[in-house]
This record gives sequence, structure tokens and C-alpha cells, in this order.
Amino acid sequence: MTMILHCFRESGNAYKAAITLELAAADWRPEFVDFFNGASRTPEYRALNPMGEVPVLVDGDTVLSQSGVIQDYVSEKTGNLGPRDSDERREILRWTLFDNHKVSGIAGPLRFNMNFLPEDRRSEDTNGYLAMRLGSALKVLDGYFADRDWLAADRLTTADLACCGYLYYPEPFTFDRTAYANIDAWLDRIAATPGWKHPYDLMPGSPADRA
Amino acid sequence: MTMILHCFRESGNAYKAAITLELAAADWRPEFVDFFNGASRTPEYRALNPMGEVPVLVDGDTVLSQSGVIQDYVSEKTGNLGPRDSDERREILRWTLFDNHKVSGIAGPLRFNMNFLPEDRRSEDTNGYLAMRLGSALKVLDGYFADRDWLAADRLTTADLACCGYLYYPEPFTFDRTAYANIDAWLDRIAATPGWKHPYDLMPGSPADRA
Repeated sequence: MTMILHCFRESGNAYKAAITLELAAADWRPEFVDFFNGASRTPEYRALNPMGEVPVLVDGDTVLSQSGVIQDYVSEKTGNLGPRDSDERREILRWTLFDNHKVSGIAGPLRFNMNFLPEDRRSEDTNGYLAMRLGSALKVLDGYFADRDWLAADRLTTADLACCGYLYYPEPFTFDRTAYANIDAWLDRIAATPGWKHPYDLMPGSPADRA
Repeated sequence: MTMILHCFRESGNAYKAAITLELAAADWRPEFVDFFNGASRTPEYRALNPMGEVPVLVDGDTVLSQSGVIQDYVSEKTGNLGPRDSDERREILRWTLFDNHKVSGIAGPLRFNMNFLPEDRRSEDTNGYLAMRLGSALKVLDGYFADRDWLAADRLTTADLACCGYLYYPEPFTFDRTAYANIDAWLDRIAATPGWKHPYDLMPGSPADRA
């Protein structure tokens, strides 16, 4: 049965799930959530996900939210991109949590504030604070890649596909690939994986479409 | 062998690991990290944890960071507070990620900014933004408890001990228990667990000690 991913292309959190489904060769299709017009705040969507967040994966009777949970489910179901033992499982979890807390968890809101929030609601203080926190996390990530190709194992795993969730987007959010040589090379490695797609080529709909 | 948790009592992220160890009846002891005087930025500490974060659990040759990874390890090792099947495992992961991203991931920095940052470095804009985001997450949490006692199963699990990480601290961070009746009752349920301890009674050292 084809799995359905409720998503939209501006969401890096949805991208983590979508690119995992795609590179794990899962049978799936995207279903557009019109997030910017309030679709995730409707009662219908809240019934699907009380957290009100995108993405949601539906696989028959199984309904899953949180990108990290969807990544875990897809890697287990397909046997691809997941851990091979307990140590790898914990390493994947470690970087997935680090991403949710400090990389995507900051980059997502910062990119939203800087690009999609009306100008009169933007705060330099707030965005400066988020940029400072994102920079600290990216420095850790860049340092970690000094002598490693991948985050959690000797190959691409869902941990990489979590941490890169927002890092391919072109809109400004204070992340400059040239300032992080190791991250830059790692993003190129991921993008060189057969079947890889940019978020804008993998998921439907975005404010950019309507611009 | 006694496990060692590197921690300090002002850290809600450390508390998640410490209270899991305590309630899972693990053999452990805390080791004080003098975070406020820069101990987590030393080369020695960075060797233990390149992410530079607290907590870190050391169990013989096994060194683990990220509170969610430590919770997972301890529940697996002790057979307590963990999942009984795959569905429960994913529910625990879901709420642990939600916590890291939206509850503790916001409450921790907001509490730090409002209480431990020098006054001249505090930003009303930034703290207002964080308070707004924390409020949204707490509203989701409070709503979820309308017809449930625990987050991820029919009993206390590590998911509850993740989401409550910062919610027992007395310092102001815009969280008022009386405004969230269901969260309030849930925090009382957790605190009624035999052996439960407040973060200030479970872990060593804090700025409050020196005040």
C-alpha cells in the first residue's frame, strides 16, 4: 500500500521525512498541506495530529507524526538508512535529538521569521538570538565532520537526513555554506546519493509557487 | 558497576536523565559539572562530549550524551520506564522529540535568559518570542492530558520524564501551573511516584547554592 506523507515543500521537517522515504525506496506519495493558509490548524488536521505539526505519515491504519518517528518507522520498514546494532541506533537517536533541539529546531523558526513573517512582526533581537544559537550548533556539526563522512555510522543514515533538513533551502537564514567547509562537503555527499532530490523538487506547494 | 551522570541541578536536561536513573532503580551517582563557571567548555569535557552539553552518562566504556539517549539506554538496561512494544516505543520517541524541540528546548533557554543571564543582556523581544512558543507547546500538552494520565502509555515512561524536565523549577520562566490544570495534575502524578525527587534534591550544585 502506498504511504501518504502530509507535507509542503517549505517545511524542512517534512523534507526529513520525504527524503528518507525517497532514498529508502519506500512506496509513498506526498499530500499537500496548505500550511501558510492555516490548513494545519483545522479540526480535521488536529484529529490527524494533535500537535498540529507537519509532517504526518499515514500507512494504512498507522498514523505517525514527528519527523524523527517517521524516519525511524520508514527505516525499520524498508531495512534502509537505519541502524545495524544498538550502538548505531543510539548514535542515530543522538543526532536526531540534537537536530530537533538545536539545528532544525532553530533554523526552521529563524528562516520562517526572516522570510515568511510580515516585516512589521520581525524582531532583530529575536532573530539575532536564534542566529547565535544556530551558529553554535553548526560549529559543533562542522567540527564533528573534521574526520568523519557521516554522522552516526560509516554510511548515510536517517541522522544525516535529519540534520540537513533545512540546510538546502536558498532563502536567507544566516547559514552560509562557505563558512562551514565540512558541512558544505557533507551536504554535497548527501546530494550525490542516487535518487536525491532538493526539497523544492520533492514536495508540493509553497509560497514561492504563488509569488 | 555504578553509572556516573555528569550533571548540575539547574539543568532540566540533566534532570530528565537523573530522574530516569532514580525511578528506574539504576545504580548511579551524580558528578557535578560546574557549568556556570565554564566547566562544559573545557577540552576535557569536550572530549567526553563534543556537543559540549550536559548531561553525559558514563557506564564503564560506554559514554552517552543527549538526555533522550540516556533515558533510552537506562530504560533498556533496567527494564523499567521503557516501551513494551513498537507502538509504545514510537510514542515515547514522539513525545521525547516534541519535548526536545518545543518544551524543554524552549523552556530551558527562556529560564536561562530570564534568571541567569546578566540583566543588561536580556531581551524582552527574544523572551517574549520564546514565551509565545512555549505557551503553544504547553497548550498542546495540556490538551493531550484531557483524557489521559500519561503521555505515551498507560503508565509513567521516560516520555513523561522528558517533558517534565523543566516544569518543576521555581524560577520564573512564564510557566504558571495554575494556568494549565491538566499539566498541573500530571506533574502531581509524577511527583507521587515512590522515590521521586525534585531536581534540587537529586543533583548537586547550582547558582542558588552560592547565592
